[in-house]
Amino acid sequence: MSEVLMCEANVSEGRRLDLVEGFVDAVRAVDGVSIADYSSDADHHRSVITFLGPPERVLEGAKALATAVLAKIDMREHAGEHPRQGALDVVPFIPLRGVSTERAVEIAREFGGWLGEQGVPVYFYEDAATRPERQSLPKIRKGEYEALEAKLADPEWAPDAGPAAFNARAGATVTGARFPLIAFNVNLRTEDLEIAKTIARAVRHINGGYKAVRGMGFALEDKKMVQVSMNLVNYTETPIPRVLETVRSEAARYGVAVAGTELIGPVPLDALEEVVRHYLQTHDFETEQVVETALLP
Amino acid sequence: MSEVLMCEANVSEGRRLDLVEGFVDAVRAVDGVSIADYSSDADHHRSVITFLGPPERVLEGAKALATAVLAKIDMREHAGEHPRQGALDVVPFIPLRGVSTERAVEIAREFGGWLGEQGVPVYFYEDAATRPERQSLPKIRKGEYEALEAKLADPEWAPDAGPAAFNARAGATVTGARFPLIAFNVNLRTEDLEIAKTIARAVRHINGGYKAVRGMGFALEDKKMVQVSMNLVNYTETPIPRVLETVRSEAARYGVAVAGTELIGPVPLDALEEVVRHYLQTHDFETEQVVETALLP
Repeated sequence: MSEVLMCEANVSEGRRLDLVEGFVDAVRAVDGVSIADYSSDADHHRSVITFLGPPERVLEGAKALATAVLAKIDMREHAGEHPRQGALDVVPFIPLRGVSTERAVEIAREFGGWLGEQGVPVYFYEDAATRPERQSLPKIRKGEYEALEAKLADPEWAPDAGPAAFNARAGATVTGARFPLIAFNVNLRTEDLEIAKTIARAVRHINGGYKAVRGMGFALEDKKMVQVSMNLVNYTETPIPRVLETVRSEAARYGVAVAGTELIGPVPLDALEEVVRHYLQTHDFETEQVVETALLP
Repeated sequence: MSEVLMCEANVSEGRRLDLVEGFVDAVRAVDGVSIADYSSDADHHRSVITFLGPPERVLEGAKALATAVLAKIDMREHAGEHPRQGALDVVPFIPLRGVSTERAVEIAREFGGWLGEQGVPVYFYEDAATRPERQSLPKIRKGEYEALEAKLADPEWAPDAGPAAFNARAGATVTGARFPLIAFNVNLRTEDLEIAKTIARAVRHINGGYKAVRGMGFALEDKKMVQVSMNLVNYTETPIPRVLETVRSEAARYGVAVAGTELIGPVPLDALEEVVRHYLQTHDFETEQVVETALLP
């Protein structure tokens, strides 16, 4: 099976688009790496660059990006709406296809080790975290760049790689591995927001629902509907069809039907495997049967 | 959008596997072409080699295959169970992704023209046919290799490309374009074969069913079930979910449930688009959202 790893790098530059193009070009120049997407937000003063390929190539892509970013961004001049702590702020490696979480963690740790050698303090988060309190990005980034110098001086927050000395220009980088996230919204044929909120509570983990579901209820005023807006954080443990059918069943208690759903943004091919299996009842369908997979690296 | 064309070449050699490996290597050596699959059948004395890539590259792959095959296979020595007329017997070009049928026809005609120049009589079939009676492969191949010399002498069967003179060594080649075919079986929780046959008649085109469905009813004795076995010849015109739901509805008339289904062999990614849209009710889902498509050529 082909091996595809994805990297969704968050960079603290969202205004000087020529610089961002330069960062993207640096990644694109790495053999075997493909740019899937990139976008910038001026208010957030932040860009997200998504690239993918075989794990070792994606690691090289991340190094090339880091080199370009560290040469151009000075955190002493950075201010934007989005929380941030470093020039190369967050670098998650995401196993997409034929790559285990363990392998993604390995790549993240290797990248972090290398980045540390360049003089940048590095924290490992999510599946690559070295201790439970460092799993969560908001916890690591609390206080942001402005609090970083004091934080690094606290032994509790000694970096996982790189120097504990404050690097005023680069700040710190958070890197790690996480499962691909699926943004999945279900629109309901009612304007009763309470129904969407009740269903969100029924399906999300925090209130007793599915382990890999986070969710909220929203009003869609233009459409005269309400929406159960969800993030599926592990489509293997909690597949899309199971979530949709539970939402449908809970909505039916109020005589409310599903008007439609939205899969927002990129979706890994493997997340569709269970959709095909469940609804077509093709119990042994595998995404390797998809002809185009023969073209993957 | 990436452009992916597939070629499913049928070659009259299924016993000397070293030769077949050589044919596959000849295709593999063409830059930009990927081998999706190949298999040989000794009784049929025939191999199928499936490769894909950008249209122009697949054309080059087909030429490389033809050159290798024509150098090694002599039809005067060929006998097998499967109908055949030439060393390179049938070469369909199949639009998979971002390629129109018209473009696939162009490639097939270009390949046929080139092959004709190599001294092989060529017939165009399916979407590349030059007249209605040449759409069907069985009609073109009627009488097989043994009848070819007389056939070529008949002005009605003048080749579409290449010489009308009989090429005893190479025979003739049939090339053309056709839509990807999906082999889709639905297993039913009954042993009553008549139910499967009745449903096959309900859904297949010939008896008034869906335009792009061919089908038959079979007994699955080991499983104590029956099967509606179908070929979906155009998943755009007649999508998989519509066919399954019609089979399900017809079976329900007899109190019979769908036990499971089978998607046999390779499936184009785009054939799954309507599966996701229909069952997840994601009205605007597009396979371009599948992350891995960023890696396609």
